[in-house]
Amino acid sequence: MFGVIMAGGSGTRFWPASRKDRPKQFLNITGKAPMLVETCNRLSPLVPDQEMIIILGKSHEQEARGLLEGRKLHILAEPMGRNTAPCIGLGAVYAEYLGCKGAIAFLPADHFIRDQKSFLEAVRLAGTVAEKGGIVTLGIVPTRPETGYGYIRRVEVNQSEKENSFFPVSAFVEKPDFATAKQYLTNGDYFWNAGIFVATAQTILEEIKAHMPRLYEGLQQVRDVMGTPDFPRVLKEVYEGLESISFDYGIMEKTRGDVYVVPCECGWSDVGSWSSLYDLRSGEYDASNNLVEGEALIIDCRNSFISSRNGRLVAVLGLERCLVVDTQDSVLVADLDRSQDIRKIVEALQRSGKERLL
Amino acid sequence: MFGVIMAGGSGTRFWPASRKDRPKQFLNITGKAPMLVETCNRLSPLVPDQEMIIILGKSHEQEARGLLEGRKLHILAEPMGRNTAPCIGLGAVYAEYLGCKGAIAFLPADHFIRDQKSFLEAVRLAGTVAEKGGIVTLGIVPTRPETGYGYIRRVEVNQSEKENSFFPVSAFVEKPDFATAKQYLTNGDYFWNAGIFVATAQTILEEIKAHMPRLYEGLQQVRDVMGTPDFPRVLKEVYEGLESISFDYGIMEKTRGDVYVVPCECGWSDVGSWSSLYDLRSGEYDASNNLVEGEALIIDCRNSFISSRNGRLVAVLGLERCLVVDTQDSVLVADLDRSQDIRKIVEALQRSGKERLL
Repeated sequence: MFGVIMAGGSGTRFWPASRKDRPKQFLNITGKAPMLVETCNRLSPLVPDQEMIIILGKSHEQEARGLLEGRKLHILAEPMGRNTAPCIGLGAVYAEYLGCKGAIAFLPADHFIRDQKSFLEAVRLAGTVAEKGGIVTLGIVPTRPETGYGYIRRVEVNQSEKENSFFPVSAFVEKPDFATAKQYLTNGDYFWNAGIFVATAQTILEEIKAHMPRLYEGLQQVRDVMGTPDFPRVLKEVYEGLESISFDYGIMEKTRGDVYVVPCECGWSDVGSWSSLYDLRSGEYDASNNLVEGEALIIDCRNSFISSRNGRLVAVLGLERCLVVDTQDSVLVADLDRSQDIRKIVEALQRSGKERLL
Repeated sequence: MFGVIMAGGSGTRFWPASRKDRPKQFLNITGKAPMLVETCNRLSPLVPDQEMIIILGKSHEQEARGLLEGRKLHILAEPMGRNTAPCIGLGAVYAEYLGCKGAIAFLPADHFIRDQKSFLEAVRLAGTVAEKGGIVTLGIVPTRPETGYGYIRRVEVNQSEKENSFFPVSAFVEKPDFATAKQYLTNGDYFWNAGIFVATAQTILEEIKAHMPRLYEGLQQVRDVMGTPDFPRVLKEVYEGLESISFDYGIMEKTRGDVYVVPCECGWSDVGSWSSLYDLRSGEYDASNNLVEGEALIIDCRNSFISSRNGRLVAVLGLERCLVVDTQDSVLVADLDRSQDIRKIVEALQRSGKERLL
């Protein structure tokens, strides 16, 4: 089985730890290794390095090569970001070029998964299904009425079918409001869309041909020069002419082909904010439910996330639900429940021209 | 008029800005100059530099000489801290040695006074009274039911005497509880004891002779070697044999001589915590009542004190009543109303042997 790991993101939600030059997937925020490395390792039992393809932004290529030094996996640099549809198309043609005939798992580089075994079982099953045709998504079984994710609705099934291991998809649903999310949670037919799916290169390229012909044409040009010195130049020319479109929007919402969902309970999180990182690392809390990294002195604090990332002492006194992140040139202090709004800080830094802090 | 400025304190209440090597009186925390320099400047219209004596700890002598370079005032280093009674005795004999015949104002180096004119008027009046004998204290007219200060009670006076400019003191009163402090506030006979008083050297030394004979004897030995190379050695020998006793406890509570209070409304604060510093600098608040120093980015915060003291960016999001102090090696984040408890942090650092951060 091949794997395509999409590491092109440039998020700002983990500022000041994440920066333009080092977005979230290159950070060790879940406590063990940089998320990209964890993603590769997680997939390894199913996908040998020779069949693993990492696609990322040109400016992060060196960082990734450093982190993955000595491994025989493939690193492809996009000349510019064009969202997931071109990235997935590129992954598919590159896998074909490497000799892939079967299923390819496409997955983001910056997600957290607690239960590797369940995850791999779901991906393996998805691969088996995908080899018969169609696109197979992983559907994360929801654990709370989350309004921050899109949902996958399976077709209605009768009682005896409910224990099946995969289902045809009835619809992809946008982020719901809270009342709707609560219904989804109790209903049982809805799953979180984690952006993880499995398909053969042939299926992907047929879909692209049908719904994004310009991308298809570009991918043909790129395929023709793979393995030659012309590859970077042609890739750049093609990408310059492409629109920035997500795979969900460009393909999944338009396909008339088969789409399946494999339900999965694997402790998944997209780690979308400091707050969600705090939640998923609950096993590391101190007696007052503080999550503490680095040199810190905590007095009378509860439910707080204190991260000293540059060797300085962070002393915290009398706080509740507070986020402190100390880095070499900046320190962030925030209400942990406002960590979604950290983009406002990044925007303000952009407006005031403080590029060095981005 | 002579002035003795007591700069021997080694407080920890402004950690991490204040350190063992640089206590509060050497910090610029009120916004203009280090507090010691402000104290000297404040007194200058009344006391020429040649008649100003600064007494401080040996380890801070170089710092003080640097701050006051070019000024002809006198800096005396105590070989070790022995609280205020020895310090005041030393100031008195040194002033005598310099030729002082009249009143001496004794005052701490680390207080804030908003209204210099009212303050100097009170000190000048106190000097006039003191030259007739007795010890004259400044009594700060209370503005709130403060439980953190000692109080000075004047004798009961009839209606026509209430507008007098000074009064005999009836008692020095310990820090009250809140209910008692409220009574003091409405009563009108009580004033905050700011530790500022005026007396002649003769009065001081007579009182010391009567109530602290061992100190008196030591001061005679010190006086005999003033201006000779033996001075530091003798001072050290004498100080080693002295008890650590405050002037309030050693003299003021025991004296049978005359003690007066000059009421004073001068916007005084002992600046005893980050919180009181925040309060007294209310004129510098932004529109959301934040006090901000240095490079900071503040989003949706109110009633907070943000101090970036080392050129780094401090970004704060969604906080209320928060204190952030960023220094070269440490950052403090606290509930502003808990700033009295910063000593707990300092104690914890001491216990864990982190001397470099003290």
